[in-house]
Amino acid sequence: MKKYLYLIAGLFLWASCVVAVNNKSGLSGSTSANNKKAEAKRQKAPKYVFYFIGDGYGPAQAHLAEEYLANRDGRILPDTLLMNTFPVHGTYTTYAGNRFITGSAAAGTALAAGHKTTINTICMSGDHGLKYKSMAELLRSRGMKIGIVTSVSIDHATPAVFYAHQPNRNNYYDIALELAESDFNYFAGGGFKDPEGVKKGNKNPLANMGIDKSTATSANKYPSAYAIAEQAGYRFVNSKSEFAQLKKGDDKIVVFDPKPASGASIPYVIDQTDENFTLVDFTKKGIELLDNPNGFFMMVEGGKIDWACHANDAATAALEVLQFDDAVREAYNFYLKHPNETLIVICSDHETGGLTLGHAATHYETSYQYLNNQKCSTEAFTEMIEDYKAKHPNNARYEDIYPLLKEYFGFDTTDELKLDQYDIADLKKALQDDVTTTYEERMHNPRLECGYGPYNPLATVAARILANKAGLSWTTYSHTAIPCPARAVGVGAEAFYGYYDNTELPRKILKMYELL
Amino acid sequence: MKKYLYLIAGLFLWASCVVAVNNKSGLSGSTSANNKKAEAKRQKAPKYVFYFIGDGYGPAQAHLAEEYLANRDGRILPDTLLMNTFPVHGTYTTYAGNRFITGSAAAGTALAAGHKTTINTICMSGDHGLKYKSMAELLRSRGMKIGIVTSVSIDHATPAVFYAHQPNRNNYYDIALELAESDFNYFAGGGFKDPEGVKKGNKNPLANMGIDKSTATSANKYPSAYAIAEQAGYRFVNSKSEFAQLKKGDDKIVVFDPKPASGASIPYVIDQTDENFTLVDFTKKGIELLDNPNGFFMMVEGGKIDWACHANDAATAALEVLQFDDAVREAYNFYLKHPNETLIVICSDHETGGLTLGHAATHYETSYQYLNNQKCSTEAFTEMIEDYKAKHPNNARYEDIYPLLKEYFGFDTTDELKLDQYDIADLKKALQDDVTTTYEERMHNPRLECGYGPYNPLATVAARILANKAGLSWTTYSHTAIPCPARAVGVGAEAFYGYYDNTELPRKILKMYELL
Repeated sequence: MKKYLYLIAGLFLWASCVVAVNNKSGLSGSTSANNKKAEAKRQKAPKYVFYFIGDGYGPAQAHLAEEYLANRDGRILPDTLLMNTFPVHGTYTTYAGNRFITGSAAAGTALAAGHKTTINTICMSGDHGLKYKSMAELLRSRGMKIGIVTSVSIDHATPAVFYAHQPNRNNYYDIALELAESDFNYFAGGGFKDPEGVKKGNKNPLANMGIDKSTATSANKYPSAYAIAEQAGYRFVNSKSEFAQLKKGDDKIVVFDPKPASGASIPYVIDQTDENFTLVDFTKKGIELLDNPNGFFMMVEGGKIDWACHANDAATAALEVLQFDDAVREAYNFYLKHPNETLIVICSDHETGGLTLGHAATHYETSYQYLNNQKCSTEAFTEMIEDYKAKHPNNARYEDIYPLLKEYFGFDTTDELKLDQYDIADLKKALQDDVTTTYEERMHNPRLECGYGPYNPLATVAARILANKAGLSWTTYSHTAIPCPARAVGVGAEAFYGYYDNTELPRKILKMYELL
Repeated sequence: MKKYLYLIAGLFLWASCVVAVNNKSGLSGSTSANNKKAEAKRQKAPKYVFYFIGDGYGPAQAHLAEEYLANRDGRILPDTLLMNTFPVHGTYTTYAGNRFITGSAAAGTALAAGHKTTINTICMSGDHGLKYKSMAELLRSRGMKIGIVTSVSIDHATPAVFYAHQPNRNNYYDIALELAESDFNYFAGGGFKDPEGVKKGNKNPLANMGIDKSTATSANKYPSAYAIAEQAGYRFVNSKSEFAQLKKGDDKIVVFDPKPASGASIPYVIDQTDENFTLVDFTKKGIELLDNPNGFFMMVEGGKIDWACHANDAATAALEVLQFDDAVREAYNFYLKHPNETLIVICSDHETGGLTLGHAATHYETSYQYLNNQKCSTEAFTEMIEDYKAKHPNNARYEDIYPLLKEYFGFDTTDELKLDQYDIADLKKALQDDVTTTYEERMHNPRLECGYGPYNPLATVAARILANKAGLSWTTYSHTAIPCPARAVGVGAEAFYGYYDNTELPRKILKMYELL
């Protein structure tokens, strides 16, 4: 009998332990530990990475858009952009290896490869002796699909740093050739800036913008970048119908805008027509094409935030930021379906324009709804002025242009937007400076340079008057050195907390893959 | 024999379970769970809280100081301030309940009590119907000692929101009286602004600055705020020797500067002499006096960052930021001794001045070492100009003032700081505007208002020329709405990650004490 008691006692002790163990999961020995390790590794390395770069996007740019959204609807307190709802927020310094205020090439190299470099250098060391592997190249070699998306030309500095390696960002033709060698899966942007090598010496002055597949003539040394890319298996898409037919699995696709704006970019949101692609279109299609069992990395650049901020064009910049946030939303919807496999990081190469949310004459008041009166970008307005000037070569008159100012900036259409004597004097002087001085003369006169930068004087002053009445100001037509915001959500997002250098951004991701 | 086998088998099973359990600590039942809970609670509620508020301190202000430090030593890439090395970084919106661009009273109320309120309201609801309990008051009621430290007057909006409740921030006398009722343990600042109730109607025009304990005359309705505070047990200290003798445990102490500057503030760092206290002195002494077994909460305001930024005085602002960081260092040294009991949070009420790190005429170049040539604040320089004008009432001449510009801003002392024709024209016009227009006239002329704000024209233009040559710019003499940075280290610091509203800052702390 006693033996049964002993057995029962033994079993009881054993059973009590089993219960205790089962009450705390994860103690079932080596299998559980392995699971944990595997899970930790999965947690460490996301299957899908979105890397959003708001070019020229500093701390003021997003909040401008947040308050603009609210004011437009008659509310005084700001909305919150989707990207600002992300749980992780960090801040990072942006300086180049050889300058406090960075440029897009050096900043892009930091964001793509995690290295400081010199101004204008595309993913190489500062002395151009060493080519860096970009994060996109490293992840491609791991079998992930890669997408590079931008609202400017695909050979512009920010997209270029992910696939090209050049001592100078202006080597647009050479950058375009490197696209063909990248083996990346999806490119989308405005177009190529120098597909025929004209800037390099080719004599065939074919369109720098859009798609022109003409082969080089016998007088030309350099073959078309289109032809080279096609030889490498790439297919160019620049019609909306063909774009719509692209489907999951279609590989080595390059999408360009059918009606690109200057610099082979897609037009500003404020100037777009139904014929154009948007950054949202590009992002959505990228997700569709790139999704595969090995995962993907997609870089999406809001490149024209920067251009609008260079031009100190607040209304245009606000709409570009909203479009950028809408592109983030496409990624976020994907993240919601794959929350345990997706990482979204949003960063910026630098702030542009020295934008601040206050102006000396408006004191503590702001009225960002005024920006809603602007109906085109200052770039598009400049074209109208240039058209007018061409038709009136020796007698440009403020009175002739005034109706355009009224129509496209809303001046004198409401009490708040009434032009006062100072505004009118500034506008008239801008027109006069435009017709009586050359670009070079303006750029060598500190007063005129501060007034207009490299832009059309009248368009610049009109946008400034509107911005100042709204309670906004700018301090430069170049970049600034203000630290920029990072936002992150998803697998490994917590790595992006804190205050760090821009070179840390890709390093944090590469560490997740043990690639650093 | 079998019974022994059963017993051995049972014991073996039991022993194997014990081993398995012991391999994973923390499963030893209720004691361990209680420890964990207790530990979690300790982790949640720090014993010592430092709450630093950089008044007017936005994203650009700290980085200006970081690059200034580097440039001064001949390096081009920025240093890192101590506060920027803190592991946690967050960003928050600052708007008031009724305005996008906030003021110090509404922002302070948010930071002190976690509630939005209207402009100029001190720790009350927007309609002034409800007094809010500040975080300092709530923690005082929990037995913690409280210190309120500032570089401006102790009745100024930012310190006031922690102990006073007034419908208007300009009720300086009433705020001072509330200090006496606070039961807080340590106050330190420049002084009282209206200790005798003169602004309220008292006829005794006693010094508004420094300590004057004169009792009110019979004609006066309001007793001195000093007398009221002394009746409540407070002791006023305004000599360096008495300050040095203050020691741990000394309670109900109010320290004021023996030689305060305008507005009953301690002078700007750039203008200080050995006779003045610094924010570092105040912080260090606060730690000594407040340290006790029940813990403490100390608010430290870098209040003159804001004043320098209102005046668009970059050199002065940079030095105020460095002093603020040095005050943070005192707290950080304390944290290093008590890392498991201390929380340091650094925040700001709003950005001031619309400071950006770039200027249209300097493009991508910066040279912040130029700021080192400035030898006094624009406020001190204004006094020199006023002295000169008083001596030359009808014939103020640029040539007379030029030596001062050379001496105090370094103009024409190096090639880089050479005044060009535009600079000289601006300076001469500023002097002319100063002597030919009244303050009111300038504030009603948009051109002059944008040029000088409410400040001395010549001093303002001189500081602007220096800042612009250095590659810096400002856009307003008021605040801006740019989101501001939070930094944190220590117990509970991780609560400060992310993007949130300024009202969340005290709420995050109060939650740690289960006071919310």
